[in-house]
Amino acid sequence: MTGRVARSGTGAEADLFWEDLVPGRRFDLGVTEVDRDEMLAYARRFDPQWYHVDEPQAATSEYGGLIASGFFTVSLFMRAYVDGLLSRAAAAASPGLEELRWLAPVYAGDRLAVTLEVVAQGPSRTKPDCGTATLRGSMARLAAARPQAPQEVLRTQFRGWFFRRGGAS
Amino acid sequence: MTGRVARSGTGAEADLFWEDLVPGRRFDLGVTEVDRDEMLAYARRFDPQWYHVDEPQAATSEYGGLIASGFFTVSLFMRAYVDGLLSRAAAAASPGLEELRWLAPVYAGDRLAVTLEVVAQGPSRTKPDCGTATLRGSMARLAAARPQAPQEVLRTQFRGWFFRRGGAS
Repeated sequence: MTGRVARSGTGAEADLFWEDLVPGRRFDLGVTEVDRDEMLAYARRFDPQWYHVDEPQAATSEYGGLIASGFFTVSLFMRAYVDGLLSRAAAAASPGLEELRWLAPVYAGDRLAVTLEVVAQGPSRTKPDCGTATLRGSMARLAAARPQAPQEVLRTQFRGWFFRRGGAS
Repeated sequence: MTGRVARSGTGAEADLFWEDLVPGRRFDLGVTEVDRDEMLAYARRFDPQWYHVDEPQAATSEYGGLIASGFFTVSLFMRAYVDGLLSRAAAAASPGLEELRWLAPVYAGDRLAVTLEVVAQGPSRTKPDCGTATLRGSMARLAAARPQAPQEVLRTQFRGWFFRRGGAS
């Protein structure tokens, strides 16, 4: 059905297809800010370890304060990926992640620049109207003190299925 | 400091140390149920793709209804891991995941059995009072119709740092 193929991740008409995801292409997915209340709410529900939820204990730790749950940080990555790419791409889900690295602690108030790069492109063995793209995502903390050198805090590599242009029409 | 070493992920006294995480050891992390409202709230905030948030569209899709964001499912895994293991283990964070696979769609109301197995054990290059453990986690859907064969919906392999018994005293 053409209707399915042209639909982006958010249901809008897609203008980005598998053919457009050529290796080396980079996408700027914007800057996301770590909201303290939301970071805490996530941790209390899904990752209630003391360095994520207990402010006085965390203040005495090697981190010097509360740090974000790694899965909260990757949730923020996911939202940036939806807003910056999937909302315009003919995407068809993902089988999973090949790598996810938490490289440095993330704190409330951090501003994280999110980027995405296409690493590889290939046919899909299971979905003939799709191809796969291997994507590498990154989040890097922006700091006024070091404007030229954001600190990478998260790196991930994953595969996604994307419809071919006109593939299933 | 002995106080640090004996503290579990939730701040209680730890009774599980790196030495206890021998390859082949398995942990039953209980059964978690997928709450529809929470699944939707997560998706609206972090993964607002149509098959996660738009019920009428999702009903006409290959999935036949709304499915959980993969990062919501892994958030439920994290909570079970905290409750079932980290709350009693002398854990010291994780550098990341080596693999995360979403093997089948997850639906509201699903009951997922969570298990963990130790795959490997080794010294830590960066933390002398810790060792690393490579862990494999799994979530499998329980269904009344197939009580003997739960369907695996998520699989992940990751490393964690755990303090050695008395290591930093």
